[in-house]
Amino acid sequence: MHTIDHLGVAVKSLAQARKFYEQLGLNVLGEELIPHEKVKVAMIPMGESRIELIEATSPDSVIAKFVKKRGEGLHHVAIHVPDLTQAVEQLKKTGTRFVSDEIKIGAGGHLYVFVHPSSTGGVLLELVQDVPEGV
Amino acid sequence: MHTIDHLGVAVKSLAQARKFYEQLGLNVLGEELIPHEKVKVAMIPMGESRIELIEATSPDSVIAKFVKKRGEGLHHVAIHVPDLTQAVEQLKKTGTRFVSDEIKIGAGGHLYVFVHPSSTGGVLLELVQDVPEGV
Repeated sequence: MHTIDHLGVAVKSLAQARKFYEQLGLNVLGEELIPHEKVKVAMIPMGESRIELIEATSPDSVIAKFVKKRGEGLHHVAIHVPDLTQAVEQLKKTGTRFVSDEIKIGAGGHLYVFVHPSSTGGVLLELVQDVPEGV
Repeated sequence: MHTIDHLGVAVKSLAQARKFYEQLGLNVLGEELIPHEKVKVAMIPMGESRIELIEATSPDSVIAKFVKKRGEGLHHVAIHVPDLTQAVEQLKKTGTRFVSDEIKIGAGGHLYVFVHPSSTGGVLLELVQDVPEGV
């Protein structure tokens, strides 16, 4: 089934941004460093989805550049799809533009690809597929 | 429970934007006119959430101004909260900025309020509470 996997929100300061969500009664998990993306993130589980607050740890990270150019705010929306290969094949047939052409494997073993905002109504859209254990 | 109720995405053309989501295998519902907001919307159910594509029907609608200034893209994120009055009270105590101070009643009878992006990490955040039938 298609579900919203997460919303990635680029912020200047995790310490500052997490306060609001905590006051709303949400559980903001501990910060996690992702060195190869030069960011640290704090996850906020929310039903079947989650919000990921993302802070740059270096001025040359994608997130630092985004915040410098556009300010804090939503960076991407991730949608969970049942079959990513099939989805990408179908979307390519109809001229959908992707940020990069190949499907990549994330840290947790999941598969993902980014669709360019020009195809989605202005939203950087990540398509994600979980891979069953043992595959 | 807190869940993501919907993502509101401001687009130039529903007819154009819906194509991508249909090609992804999602069910894009019929267009609905909301005259007092000068927009028409197309809902895309997605698990416990939905994406709402929003197109302005007049150049003086909030959505038309948003698209003119920032381009197409995410306009707001709506989070479902169990008790809106209690949430607003708690957030006001800690200096959260709201777009307008009072809780409003939406077309479907639900209660809602908008939190200013300066308090949330740059996201215009709608807090929504469903009201049980008969209340």
